[in-house]
Amino acid sequence: MTPTTSTGRPQRVVILGGGFAGIIAARTLRNAPVEITLIDRTNHHLFQPLLYQVATAVLAPSDITSPIRHLLRSQQNTTVLMAEARAIDVDRRVVTIDEGREIPYDSLILATGARHSYFGHDEWERLAPGLKSIDDAQDIRRRFLLAFERAEKSLDPEEQAAYLTFVVIGAGPTGVELAGMIPEIAREGMRPEFRNVDTRRTRVILLEGATRVLLTFPEHLSERAQRDLETLGVEVRTKALVTKIEPGAVWLGEERIRTHTVLWGAGNAASPLTRSLGVPLDRAGRVLVQPDMSIPGHPEVFAAGDVAAAVWKDNLMVPGVAPAANQMGRLAAENLLRTLRGEGRKTLRYTDKGNLATIGRNRAVADFGKLRVAGRMAWFLWLFVHILYLVGFRNRMSVLSQWIYAFATYRRAARLIDNAERYMTPPPAPAAAGSPAPPGSGRPEP
Amino acid sequence: MTPTTSTGRPQRVVILGGGFAGIIAARTLRNAPVEITLIDRTNHHLFQPLLYQVATAVLAPSDITSPIRHLLRSQQNTTVLMAEARAIDVDRRVVTIDEGREIPYDSLILATGARHSYFGHDEWERLAPGLKSIDDAQDIRRRFLLAFERAEKSLDPEEQAAYLTFVVIGAGPTGVELAGMIPEIAREGMRPEFRNVDTRRTRVILLEGATRVLLTFPEHLSERAQRDLETLGVEVRTKALVTKIEPGAVWLGEERIRTHTVLWGAGNAASPLTRSLGVPLDRAGRVLVQPDMSIPGHPEVFAAGDVAAAVWKDNLMVPGVAPAANQMGRLAAENLLRTLRGEGRKTLRYTDKGNLATIGRNRAVADFGKLRVAGRMAWFLWLFVHILYLVGFRNRMSVLSQWIYAFATYRRAARLIDNAERYMTPPPAPAAAGSPAPPGSGRPEP
Repeated sequence: MTPTTSTGRPQRVVILGGGFAGIIAARTLRNAPVEITLIDRTNHHLFQPLLYQVATAVLAPSDITSPIRHLLRSQQNTTVLMAEARAIDVDRRVVTIDEGREIPYDSLILATGARHSYFGHDEWERLAPGLKSIDDAQDIRRRFLLAFERAEKSLDPEEQAAYLTFVVIGAGPTGVELAGMIPEIAREGMRPEFRNVDTRRTRVILLEGATRVLLTFPEHLSERAQRDLETLGVEVRTKALVTKIEPGAVWLGEERIRTHTVLWGAGNAASPLTRSLGVPLDRAGRVLVQPDMSIPGHPEVFAAGDVAAAVWKDNLMVPGVAPAANQMGRLAAENLLRTLRGEGRKTLRYTDKGNLATIGRNRAVADFGKLRVAGRMAWFLWLFVHILYLVGFRNRMSVLSQWIYAFATYRRAARLIDNAERYMTPPPAPAAAGSPAPPGSGRPEP
Repeated sequence: MTPTTSTGRPQRVVILGGGFAGIIAARTLRNAPVEITLIDRTNHHLFQPLLYQVATAVLAPSDITSPIRHLLRSQQNTTVLMAEARAIDVDRRVVTIDEGREIPYDSLILATGARHSYFGHDEWERLAPGLKSIDDAQDIRRRFLLAFERAEKSLDPEEQAAYLTFVVIGAGPTGVELAGMIPEIAREGMRPEFRNVDTRRTRVILLEGATRVLLTFPEHLSERAQRDLETLGVEVRTKALVTKIEPGAVWLGEERIRTHTVLWGAGNAASPLTRSLGVPLDRAGRVLVQPDMSIPGHPEVFAAGDVAAAVWKDNLMVPGVAPAANQMGRLAAENLLRTLRGEGRKTLRYTDKGNLATIGRNRAVADFGKLRVAGRMAWFLWLFVHILYLVGFRNRMSVLSQWIYAFATYRRAARLIDNAERYMTPPPAPAAAGSPAPPGSGRPEP
């Protein structure tokens, strides 16, 4: 990487991804004599920690998203492009977007995040959607709300029970947060609105392959979280390995659980762009970055956030949480700047900001190293931290008011089922009009 | 229609549609000894008068929608089903839903509303979406916001100009409201966020086939509205007949306007369900109802709202506005009740609540018969009326706060592009990687 280019034009910095790592990298470079192009396939930065609240209809999608170009509007050295990055050529130093257009760079920061991993069962994705993007959250919200609508419409008690059974696979923070929200919504908010089903019969089953929930937390907080979940009515099953997911059921070996709504909170896989870098990746497809956040052999290419596998201490890896993405993105940009100025680079010293997970409406577990709390105190901490870090004043106010509303009334503000058509049943064949369908012939979603 | 059935069971009332007419009909029957089933293809009641604000990213979809079953939750005689009504058999008195299941009724209130009409050019729909449902509004929002994203990404000035050209077809209230919002958003809110295009160059062209905009208003208010639109920067063209819409352009005879975003505010067509009634329809497919809101030959079947063509006075028809739908829906339910009680029926006496249309951020025209105002005064009236009629306390507060925010900052709170994938360009053919695409090769949306 050269401090300035031979022609005297400013360094071209390309940042791929407008998540936590990408945004903070751009902001770190706001006064630098560089030309930044930030590329994201969406138009928005997403506050991922609250995604499960969109999925459960507490918050509206626009509450936790802000247009990336709005966040960076006053930063004159930055152009934002909404485009799909398709490949990186580290030798020619170009990123290919859309239908083959090339964006050249002098330095690159790769921060395209992760998707879920289905451990070789990609065919499960359409039956058990994961929760990474705002589209994912809207998809889950649709399925979650449609399940109750279909239960109400069904004439078959067994089918109704299957519609009122929600299976969450994976008891990490996302799985625990999703599972914890559902029982109260079903019992309190929805009960008076249904006539043909008793929504208090809703079952929520949380399946975890490991020996305990929230594996990244200390053991006693895992135990507490499990107790709290069970108090809410969630059936927690550890050492439970899903062997098959099919329309209408989840299999654990020989055991079949009837359900029409399966949510996936299990695995992570880095954005497939890492594969075009030609450097070693870990099992989740993440780049094994150097301590300065650059990739081996290419000091001008950095990786940060969920695409990067960085060593923390004692062979522990930096976890895939928002504060870690922030620290990595900032360091990548700082090291880029230091090289521009002819200074040496810094190495990552990850500061653990702690681990938080909410359980239902007013419980949480929090692990801040020395301070480890559970229950309502942890929940208030969670509330405070999330409002604090939520980008944008308007979003903060809107989220706070919706929380107060939801908390006070048990009602969900954003219970909109949109774009339901593709989930609905097809029109009947023109023949046989007038013959009533057999009970329970409602097809599950495709 | 018999007051009670021969078996002594309560009358079964089926209401099709949860819009203004359907909801008020259900509420009018809340204490009646009947069993109501309200069927809607969506789960929500929609406050249609504010739909254009979702389309232009001011309000979030959940701000103007409320789950129908939530609105009717305390009404124990009512079951809400989310289902598609496919046919009505008035002789056998059954409604067919979904894949052939039949719902029998003793009385029926048809209130399934209208879609847009493309006057025989149904192929225009995918190029020029109309604005009736929340899905329509989200579709328009996506196209509207993506046009700016594509302009920023394009390398071809002509293509950029085409992306920054918005054509609105039809200058009724919807067309005027859509067109009036765009210039200010482009000039004020978006300008600082774009680097490659000057969003102040955005063109908004409003095409109307008739001799003036807002044809249902008095002539001097039409003139005032046109002047206000032109002050905002909208190019208003009356007596302009669209002859062809194709990807990338709209044709007026020999004249071709390059644009990638065409919005349709022109025609209405009643829900196709009216065709299965076997009674005379008007040109827009609406049922020619009797003065008591029932259909000819079937006193037990009523039609209300945008599916009904009712005579007002002097051969004028009741207009397709929310207050009219409310009055028709209430009268249909009242007459149903009166017959149950053995009383005679009332006939429709439509009370005109006036006509309102906003133009941009702080102008409107209002026609209340004797009182006809324009400008800021009319805008305050509009604001007051819409907040007043918006269903649900939470929605009211949320909408009010978003308006204050948008008004104070010119910023749009809900500028989320979701589900963009199907509008994006396809991945490149695997060959020829590395050859830059020619400028302006970005394909318009399908």
